[in-house]
Amino acid sequence: MANIETFIGMDFGTDSVRALLVSREGEILASHVHDYARWAEKRHCDAARGMFRQHPLDYLEGMEAVLRGVLAGQDAAAVKGIAVDTTSSTPCAVDSTGRPLALEPEFADDPDAMFLLWKDHSAQEEADRINAVAAAWPQTDFRMYEGGTYSAEWFWSKLLYVLRRNEKVRRAAASFMEHGDWITAELTGETRLDKIIRSRCHAGHKAMWHESWGGLPPEEFLTSIDPLLVGWRQRLFTTTETADKPVGTLSLKWADKLGLSTNVVIGGNGIDCHFGAVGAQIAPGTLVKVMGTSTCDILVSPSITHCIRGICGQTDGSVIPGMVGMEAGQAAFGDVYAWFKSLLGYAGPVALAQLEADAAALPPGEGGVFALDWFNGRRTPDANNALKGALFGLNLGTTAPMVFRALIESTLFGSRAIIERFQEERIPVNAITAAGGISRKSPLVMQTCADVLNMAVKTTGTEQTCALGGAMFASVAAGTFPNVETAMQHMGSGYGTTYLPDKKRHTTYEALYRRYRRIGQLIEQHPEA
Amino acid sequence: MANIETFIGMDFGTDSVRALLVSREGEILASHVHDYARWAEKRHCDAARGMFRQHPLDYLEGMEAVLRGVLAGQDAAAVKGIAVDTTSSTPCAVDSTGRPLALEPEFADDPDAMFLLWKDHSAQEEADRINAVAAAWPQTDFRMYEGGTYSAEWFWSKLLYVLRRNEKVRRAAASFMEHGDWITAELTGETRLDKIIRSRCHAGHKAMWHESWGGLPPEEFLTSIDPLLVGWRQRLFTTTETADKPVGTLSLKWADKLGLSTNVVIGGNGIDCHFGAVGAQIAPGTLVKVMGTSTCDILVSPSITHCIRGICGQTDGSVIPGMVGMEAGQAAFGDVYAWFKSLLGYAGPVALAQLEADAAALPPGEGGVFALDWFNGRRTPDANNALKGALFGLNLGTTAPMVFRALIESTLFGSRAIIERFQEERIPVNAITAAGGISRKSPLVMQTCADVLNMAVKTTGTEQTCALGGAMFASVAAGTFPNVETAMQHMGSGYGTTYLPDKKRHTTYEALYRRYRRIGQLIEQHPEA
Repeated sequence: MANIETFIGMDFGTDSVRALLVSREGEILASHVHDYARWAEKRHCDAARGMFRQHPLDYLEGMEAVLRGVLAGQDAAAVKGIAVDTTSSTPCAVDSTGRPLALEPEFADDPDAMFLLWKDHSAQEEADRINAVAAAWPQTDFRMYEGGTYSAEWFWSKLLYVLRRNEKVRRAAASFMEHGDWITAELTGETRLDKIIRSRCHAGHKAMWHESWGGLPPEEFLTSIDPLLVGWRQRLFTTTETADKPVGTLSLKWADKLGLSTNVVIGGNGIDCHFGAVGAQIAPGTLVKVMGTSTCDILVSPSITHCIRGICGQTDGSVIPGMVGMEAGQAAFGDVYAWFKSLLGYAGPVALAQLEADAAALPPGEGGVFALDWFNGRRTPDANNALKGALFGLNLGTTAPMVFRALIESTLFGSRAIIERFQEERIPVNAITAAGGISRKSPLVMQTCADVLNMAVKTTGTEQTCALGGAMFASVAAGTFPNVETAMQHMGSGYGTTYLPDKKRHTTYEALYRRYRRIGQLIEQHPEA
Repeated sequence: MANIETFIGMDFGTDSVRALLVSREGEILASHVHDYARWAEKRHCDAARGMFRQHPLDYLEGMEAVLRGVLAGQDAAAVKGIAVDTTSSTPCAVDSTGRPLALEPEFADDPDAMFLLWKDHSAQEEADRINAVAAAWPQTDFRMYEGGTYSAEWFWSKLLYVLRRNEKVRRAAASFMEHGDWITAELTGETRLDKIIRSRCHAGHKAMWHESWGGLPPEEFLTSIDPLLVGWRQRLFTTTETADKPVGTLSLKWADKLGLSTNVVIGGNGIDCHFGAVGAQIAPGTLVKVMGTSTCDILVSPSITHCIRGICGQTDGSVIPGMVGMEAGQAAFGDVYAWFKSLLGYAGPVALAQLEADAAALPPGEGGVFALDWFNGRRTPDANNALKGALFGLNLGTTAPMVFRALIESTLFGSRAIIERFQEERIPVNAITAAGGISRKSPLVMQTCADVLNMAVKTTGTEQTCALGGAMFASVAAGTFPNVETAMQHMGSGYGTTYLPDKKRHTTYEALYRRYRRIGQLIEQHPEA
């Protein structure tokens, strides 16, 4: 017993937070999930306008609940480290102690004083302005490591949106912080803004932070976007750290609350799917694809120095310190299947499992039905939010399972287009590790993935790859393992089902994929049509 | 009472035959419908292969039933004339007395000895061959008055298909007859093949018959298509007659059966929608649109001499004798709405009326959803059976009523494309008269029709416009009225609802229609995509 060391990974998702308690040998000792209470009531949201805000109390209450949950009945003295991942970019205006403004009574109901959730689309105008200025900027395109297009979902767009829209918040705000940076500061009790450590992962992927231009973009660039940004560069941060580095130890307040030692190390934080890639034991050449409502696709490379066109971003050390972490993704994946279920739902309830069973009974491309998967625009390759979903090849005999099958096929053609882009950019992709809910729930999607990509697709050994990645980062931050690679070897959960490609189906899909590319280019090149 | 004169119009449709008994003043005295018994059981059909055959006994039994039905309790002595319309091209192999082969015991179950219903698609190879030879023929393109493309649904394709495929039928057949030509011969008791009068309407629209080349295409053209056609031109017919001309009087057999006089005049026959156009009181400048599962669009012109590109056909005297009758149409119309209902039906039953109510509550083009209506290929303008239906502009918020509305809009963009073609060809279209089931059942479709076309759309005063047109032709054939125009004035049923265009919606649809044309052309020009 004396030698047991355990680590907690805590994963803040869109709807809930979960924690895993994991031993240094990789045994999962406890798991706990907590749904955000205010969020569940859709408070502070307006889906029609793309407004999605989360209250910091949802996070604080959730954190306490899951930490108590995984510690119940466990050896508290064995806990050596905690690390946290969150969605991104999910920033919030904070006061001079790093405290989210919504925790003050006067801002308790102001959505602009809360966290602007990753999928909040309020800031499209601000993103357009940032892109216009960045495109015209003489020497450096500060979006170059973020795929070339700055998103309304990202840090600067949201910060500027709040400054422009809410004078009261603007006057009260001392800085802005990503959800994960605030959580680690809260756990360590750090209240000095200049001492709060910011995550490389968030900053590099979402805030145009890059070492080569000295951190955040220069003041004159930011003020060219909007004079309201004067001074904000300095109020934010200059340096960032990778998640394997400790940011401090547990505060007395939280140690007391949880019955833990103040020696517990708090690791650096990062973006959920990046931690998930570590939890899935990523290595160069293996794409970790987190498949849920959307996908997040992660690759690492020990050696690249060039910019990859049209992906979401690449950041040195964002996944595994010492490598460049690359992120791509599909803006809608499981959401496409859910859309069709919801469309049919006009007539009555229908189970996705039944639709999938009926679609699985059909051969590839049955009935000539054919889809474009851009139901939420296209994230990668080459972000284009104006694109839409489409269905082709419909005739009077087209059935619901045929359409469903075509929708599934289209989402995997979308996956293939991303991989093709990496390959064009000389980043090899030889195998897929699939994580996320769909990897466990939908054998048809997984088999179609293998068939379309002509690659083996392994599913992860645990569903909680993000939180497991967090436990691994905690173990490195605590000094138990020298680096993330070693932590992955010792603590990895291995793999579940492996889906192997079928040659005949792949040949059929090859032709269909070429058609997907042709028809997609045709539609994209003729936006007026 | 002594002065009362009545006329029977008999309309053989796809599923049933109906008759109207109409006075010379246009009063509808009786109506009767009979469903084909064998057809209802789907005997002699294979929908998956596009095979649709009808047994002559279905027609004979149906005819007797509806004639008895409309005569029950009526003054038989007042009946002066009967005229018949049918679907087209619906030909059958007949013996040397003009009797369908399927009426002989040895052919009673042979589908190739029955009528090949208009929508039978067995003869695609034969149509391809006819088009290849016609396209290469030196002086004259014999398809020129039939829109430039010969269809698998038409007379020669079906005749050649039967000759090629069924040697027994080929040896037994003395000629081939359209359904309507056989019915009028049956009613008059004419058994001399060379005396049986063939309808101008069927021959001109479906059999490449034209006066300028001496009737049917020349022997050398036909034998170039297939040597099996040697001698067939002579076995068919040379002259044709318009439907206002009597073909004879009622045979003793049928007079006895029905209690009618042998003085009852049998008028010429024609294609259902052409008779329907007369029943709807067509005039130059008014397009009569028969809207059902598909549409049939009829125009007349007193003056044109040139060929209209890309329509179904134009025939001198096919609608109103003395004018050129033009036919166009949409291969799927109500069928598109039924398809969506059936797609949703996977989840549960849904009423079209409910879908329509929910779609009607939305503004035009709601949600950016956008459709191409080619779910059964495109008939006009410019027949192209390879085209398919499509849905564009889909996103995660797209609902079933939005899709349904877009489908409705697309079918009316299809209507507009036909009218635009006529206008390009200097055939004015100023107003629409809508007939057929949808004109009565769907106010949303009718209003959208008015809005998209920016024209007043009147619905007909009776649902039975085809049979009413038959009664009008019967009155002219019987000598009661001097011509069809006068018969229309006296016997017309007037109009029901009139839908007036809304300027604001028309402006919205104008932009959407331009998009329909652009995206349609893009898809059509890139068949490889």
